[in-house]
Amino acid sequence: MSHGFARRLDLRGRVEMVHGGGGRAMTQLVEELFVAAFANPALQALNDQAVLPPPAGRLVMATDSHVVSPLFFPGGDIGSLAVHGTVNDVAMAGAVPLYLAAAFILEEGLPLADLARIVESMAAAARAAGVSIVTGDTKVVEAGKGDGVFITTTGVGMLAEGIDTGGARARPGDAILLSGTLGDHGVAIMACRDGLDFDVPIVSDSAALHGLVAALIAAVPGVRVLRDPTRGGLGATLNEIARASGVGMRLREASIPLHEPVRAACEFLGLDPLYVANEGKLVAIVPAAAAAAALAALRAHPLGREAALIGECVSDAQHFIELETAFGGRRVLDWLAGEQLPRIC
Amino acid sequence: MSHGFARRLDLRGRVEMVHGGGGRAMTQLVEELFVAAFANPALQALNDQAVLPPPAGRLVMATDSHVVSPLFFPGGDIGSLAVHGTVNDVAMAGAVPLYLAAAFILEEGLPLADLARIVESMAAAARAAGVSIVTGDTKVVEAGKGDGVFITTTGVGMLAEGIDTGGARARPGDAILLSGTLGDHGVAIMACRDGLDFDVPIVSDSAALHGLVAALIAAVPGVRVLRDPTRGGLGATLNEIARASGVGMRLREASIPLHEPVRAACEFLGLDPLYVANEGKLVAIVPAAAAAAALAALRAHPLGREAALIGECVSDAQHFIELETAFGGRRVLDWLAGEQLPRIC
Repeated sequence: MSHGFARRLDLRGRVEMVHGGGGRAMTQLVEELFVAAFANPALQALNDQAVLPPPAGRLVMATDSHVVSPLFFPGGDIGSLAVHGTVNDVAMAGAVPLYLAAAFILEEGLPLADLARIVESMAAAARAAGVSIVTGDTKVVEAGKGDGVFITTTGVGMLAEGIDTGGARARPGDAILLSGTLGDHGVAIMACRDGLDFDVPIVSDSAALHGLVAALIAAVPGVRVLRDPTRGGLGATLNEIARASGVGMRLREASIPLHEPVRAACEFLGLDPLYVANEGKLVAIVPAAAAAAALAALRAHPLGREAALIGECVSDAQHFIELETAFGGRRVLDWLAGEQLPRIC
Repeated sequence: MSHGFARRLDLRGRVEMVHGGGGRAMTQLVEELFVAAFANPALQALNDQAVLPPPAGRLVMATDSHVVSPLFFPGGDIGSLAVHGTVNDVAMAGAVPLYLAAAFILEEGLPLADLARIVESMAAAARAAGVSIVTGDTKVVEAGKGDGVFITTTGVGMLAEGIDTGGARARPGDAILLSGTLGDHGVAIMACRDGLDFDVPIVSDSAALHGLVAALIAAVPGVRVLRDPTRGGLGATLNEIARASGVGMRLREASIPLHEPVRAACEFLGLDPLYVANEGKLVAIVPAAAAAAALAALRAHPLGREAALIGECVSDAQHFIELETAFGGRRVLDWLAGEQLPRIC
């Protein structure tokens, strides 16, 4: 079946294989849905690539495929998540995110209205984050060979001289800060998937963190490490940093912020909040002397109001993360061994 | 099940959900397979993003998801294709490709040996093209929610001042050149999918074209338009350019290079080679006065030996692509209406 440009894309329809074929229907989908929503000159040129001004400073590049299920969840959807996830990976280098590329793998049969809602949500998230979606791609796979839509975003940002927040820079004595509560995203997804209804609805924390990063770096230019505890949660993130830096860590469980409904839901679902994914939180490791200034800077930002000093780095040849529990015991926060939450982002 | 770092990744195994979980198994897969194959300092830093030196010149950014089926085909596989496809999109801006990001969506159950073969092929293609795979991502979806592996690559390149090869710059009178034969990639995939056996095996033309582009620009800096005729083939590419530039085109069918086995296979399969995907060809539109120099530059390069002058741009308010057939008749090369070849790239 042929789509003429005279007829507008009918959003009551569904994704068909023809939308990926390289012809008129694909051009119409791209122009009327993606280019219209992401409106910017680089994208509107309709070339197979974006030409962008020379950036001042080092380049930062990050990519993430998003396969979250379900596509829509309390606090966001795969579209906003695909913007936040990659903006945050760029931001964790201490960089200013500038551009996103967005590649869609659509499953035949996806309602076009769902796709339009996702694309609008991406556009809104990108506008709010001050980044432009400058180039993209669309592929369609047969029903049963995908799952609605997968979105891969790649971000490019600019990094000023003198900033280095890579995972290998933590030193014994450094303070470990967390920008807010743990587990909100992962538990929101799991609750949604299991059809659970809590008295207090649990909402994903999905958010773009580059503003929070900029505020922190302005206050403490000597930040050692920044990382967002996404898949695998705080446990995986701290183990990665400890291994890369060759340090151990001591954490105080009582100081780790947790929303009460999330704590209760984790208990009910059998999840450990320390391993549950977050999409709007960061871990900052700073020299001990800068801990107070860093904490104040985080707390002064809307996305860091519940920030906390949760522990410190120590000398430990085995790079263990040791947790002092709320009851005064100790346990090692090991690498996540099995799979905890599939399709969480 | 837990994978210890003490035990090496067992390539006789298969992708499991745990490989996407953010824990030890994922870290092991990333380090022992991806980082080992793509070896470069930016990737080896094991951060969630790559930090890269400031480029001199404008940035070019392109992204492509690859969903080709089957994963392995004569002349390449999804790994080499994922490198070539994005390198070419960057190169068509007249830019020098520098960096790639690679995001993998793996289906549970994919043999790890297949993944390793694909990754090695990507690494070899990237080395040959002189680009580094500097950052990446891995997600795993349940069996039946993907199709083996999808690979999204995003390329960043550097564009010197004074070069502009965007699709809107063709002018009436300009010459239209094609760098070689049509249809090899699409027909190779279709033949492979249908289990067809030809006397002369048909091999994909998948190749990185940035060297050919550099040679062409060195000879003819005033190249107006460059584009690679991938999905939708020459027909879709020329229609896109004609519309963006506001010109019509006249082509001579007899001058369009075609391998005889591809012509025969197209007849057998009921395909029009003018709409079949290519992965190692480019269309160059140049001022008429530069046509001879451009053709000579293309033909002097190994990837342009069969280059040909196939037609010219004309004034036409309707932007029609008119083809003078081998028999002296005329037909309009319209936009591809239906879907011709799904999952071709």
